[in-house]
Amino acid sequence: MPDQVAARTKAVETISRVYRSHGFQPVATSAVEELSTLLGQGGGENEKLIFKIMKRGEALERAAAEKAELADLGLRFDLTLPLARWYSKHGSTLPHPFKAFHLGPVWRAERAQKGRYREFTQCDIDIIGSDSWGAEAEVIAAILKVFEAFGLTGVKVHLNDRRAVDAALAAAGIPEDKRGHACVVVDKLDKIGKDEVLKELEASIGAAGAASLATALLSGGGVAADPLDKIAASVKTLVPGAEIEIDPSLMRGMGYYTGPVFEFRHASLSGSLGGGGRYDKLTAKFGGAATPACGGSIGFERLMLILEEKGQGLDHAAPDAVVTVFDDALRARSLEVGAALRGKGLAIDVYPGTGKLKAQFKYADQKKAGYAIVIGPDEAAKGVMNVKALATGVEQSLTLDEACALIAGKH
Amino acid sequence: MPDQVAARTKAVETISRVYRSHGFQPVATSAVEELSTLLGQGGGENEKLIFKIMKRGEALERAAAEKAELADLGLRFDLTLPLARWYSKHGSTLPHPFKAFHLGPVWRAERAQKGRYREFTQCDIDIIGSDSWGAEAEVIAAILKVFEAFGLTGVKVHLNDRRAVDAALAAAGIPEDKRGHACVVVDKLDKIGKDEVLKELEASIGAAGAASLATALLSGGGVAADPLDKIAASVKTLVPGAEIEIDPSLMRGMGYYTGPVFEFRHASLSGSLGGGGRYDKLTAKFGGAATPACGGSIGFERLMLILEEKGQGLDHAAPDAVVTVFDDALRARSLEVGAALRGKGLAIDVYPGTGKLKAQFKYADQKKAGYAIVIGPDEAAKGVMNVKALATGVEQSLTLDEACALIAGKH
Repeated sequence: MPDQVAARTKAVETISRVYRSHGFQPVATSAVEELSTLLGQGGGENEKLIFKIMKRGEALERAAAEKAELADLGLRFDLTLPLARWYSKHGSTLPHPFKAFHLGPVWRAERAQKGRYREFTQCDIDIIGSDSWGAEAEVIAAILKVFEAFGLTGVKVHLNDRRAVDAALAAAGIPEDKRGHACVVVDKLDKIGKDEVLKELEASIGAAGAASLATALLSGGGVAADPLDKIAASVKTLVPGAEIEIDPSLMRGMGYYTGPVFEFRHASLSGSLGGGGRYDKLTAKFGGAATPACGGSIGFERLMLILEEKGQGLDHAAPDAVVTVFDDALRARSLEVGAALRGKGLAIDVYPGTGKLKAQFKYADQKKAGYAIVIGPDEAAKGVMNVKALATGVEQSLTLDEACALIAGKH
Repeated sequence: MPDQVAARTKAVETISRVYRSHGFQPVATSAVEELSTLLGQGGGENEKLIFKIMKRGEALERAAAEKAELADLGLRFDLTLPLARWYSKHGSTLPHPFKAFHLGPVWRAERAQKGRYREFTQCDIDIIGSDSWGAEAEVIAAILKVFEAFGLTGVKVHLNDRRAVDAALAAAGIPEDKRGHACVVVDKLDKIGKDEVLKELEASIGAAGAASLATALLSGGGVAADPLDKIAASVKTLVPGAEIEIDPSLMRGMGYYTGPVFEFRHASLSGSLGGGGRYDKLTAKFGGAATPACGGSIGFERLMLILEEKGQGLDHAAPDAVVTVFDDALRARSLEVGAALRGKGLAIDVYPGTGKLKAQFKYADQKKAGYAIVIGPDEAAKGVMNVKALATGVEQSLTLDEACALIAGKH
């Protein structure tokens, strides 16, 4: 709806401004990717949620005849894989390290629910080409600055290291083929609680493994301080008062993460407001050199949901005035007045048609305009217009310059 | 690439500003539509270019077993059908008439070439609920104002009426099943010339029909003056100096047009910069009431192509300064300085990592930053920083406030 789109546009501009003020440069990739870019690259559960696009023409006929794969393309389910594919092609022409800001829709074929849609927008920033923990700190801080720009308080950063998780899984003696499932179970901690997680772990990996994992991941025993402490300290330098918790149970679903991972949580949301991590091995999968990289993403729909609850989710984007059209013969005069007022920087809506003035006034109300202007035969003859303030009902007969001053002053 | 994305973002903001200053309200629809929304609604040749999305899970298995249609969704190939579908659902809650501004990517499975891509952006405006020729005039004028905002001169409006085309086809005695083809041939006029068009028409519909059509569509005999003259006059009121030609050979491919159609052409482009027309019967196809409507679209990629040729296609979006990082111990100081300068409204890039200063200066050059700032142990001890203007090589030792004044003044 218009009020929502206007608010979203404004939010995108805010996000873009904050990211760009931190030196991130905008990039864009296509919505459609080769299936080979999307599959088998560590996308985890999301790979099962790809909208697949059918081959076309002869290629489709041939595939059907040969009982081969009928799809060749897919809608991207995140922005990280497309960025890594894009960077492996263009990286050599870019500043090094490269700080990317990447915004656009992604698609996942899952059941829609509040704050979760099949098409949704992600706002990613990534630093490609730096193996420093300073990169994680900057990504996290820039995202926190976005929340700050919206006046959103109470965002908490959860921080963990994938290498600690891997070490804990190995130490617990969990076979490779059960590690993914164990992670999924641990990841439910904030939804089902520690006791239920333990029960599920015992059922799938036995009591000894479960106990070992519980110590390492549910109680904080397994996380090495370095580099998470440095990242946390750096973030606090950039964003005084930032709330950061080192959380050994934090998983993040994607298989492509190789080091620190992080997530942004807010009390008013189950699930996260966004997250990210380090993915040092991803660009190499697309034929480029292995390039250290890390990045993070804001879940735009969830941010808008919180802003809506705060009353910041709508933007009326109302015109300053609606110029009514008395009849077809006087349309030219209304158009001239509209163009002249627009020339002075006002947003002016000339009624698109003709019809009873009552309907045109209703239209001006529906558009939430500040003023409605009538130019009938008398006004046209005298070179004036009747300007009605819609909030108060006060009407005045004014020249163009007077009308402009009134309307510009009011808004 | 970043410079292109930044320029495109700026162009979208300009277009949005112009449309909104004319009272158009932003709306958004999803990229993915039911195939039933996209097929058989008058999309013409574009229906053959749909990227179809496969059914998922059990529905796919069932369809395969029953040899039924394997796809259920498709990527939109224009914004008009999705808008009509959206309006038929939401129209009753909107201002009436409703002036929509609709921007987003569309997809067509055709061979990519210069200025024509498989994924491209359309910027549509539509007025739904007005049967007045004033609506066409306003749509055309607002689009011309967009070109004006980019300083783009020499855009010519071609104007025709579908009803005149239909009358000419009927008068020429062309059977219904050959009319579509005849239109496609006439539409090639500006590419292949009148003689070739005539030859092709004679071959497909015979000499008599071809002669009749030539009189009506290639020489201007068949266009009724009303309402095209009124539209043209109104546009000229809104956009003094607008070039408008009533062109009986103008076709516009879509079958959903029912009245006036128009196209924007520029000498530097074969094909059009955009176009549109009246489509009074479309909303009724989606279950709503039949609502008179007209709209127009700017081909965004073609606009950007022309702007690039004019040297307006890139925007460096460079940071004001890059703060280098002397070593990990001094990173906190660099981060503090970066945050402080950003707090004064500057775009500040702190080097994301550590490394030789030479590499960091190269990075600042690559980012096209105005200044590079160094804070080594000496500077940190004295509470100053070394600020180097990258264009001149001049270095100065400055306090934070002095640096801020220098950098803000320069940019």
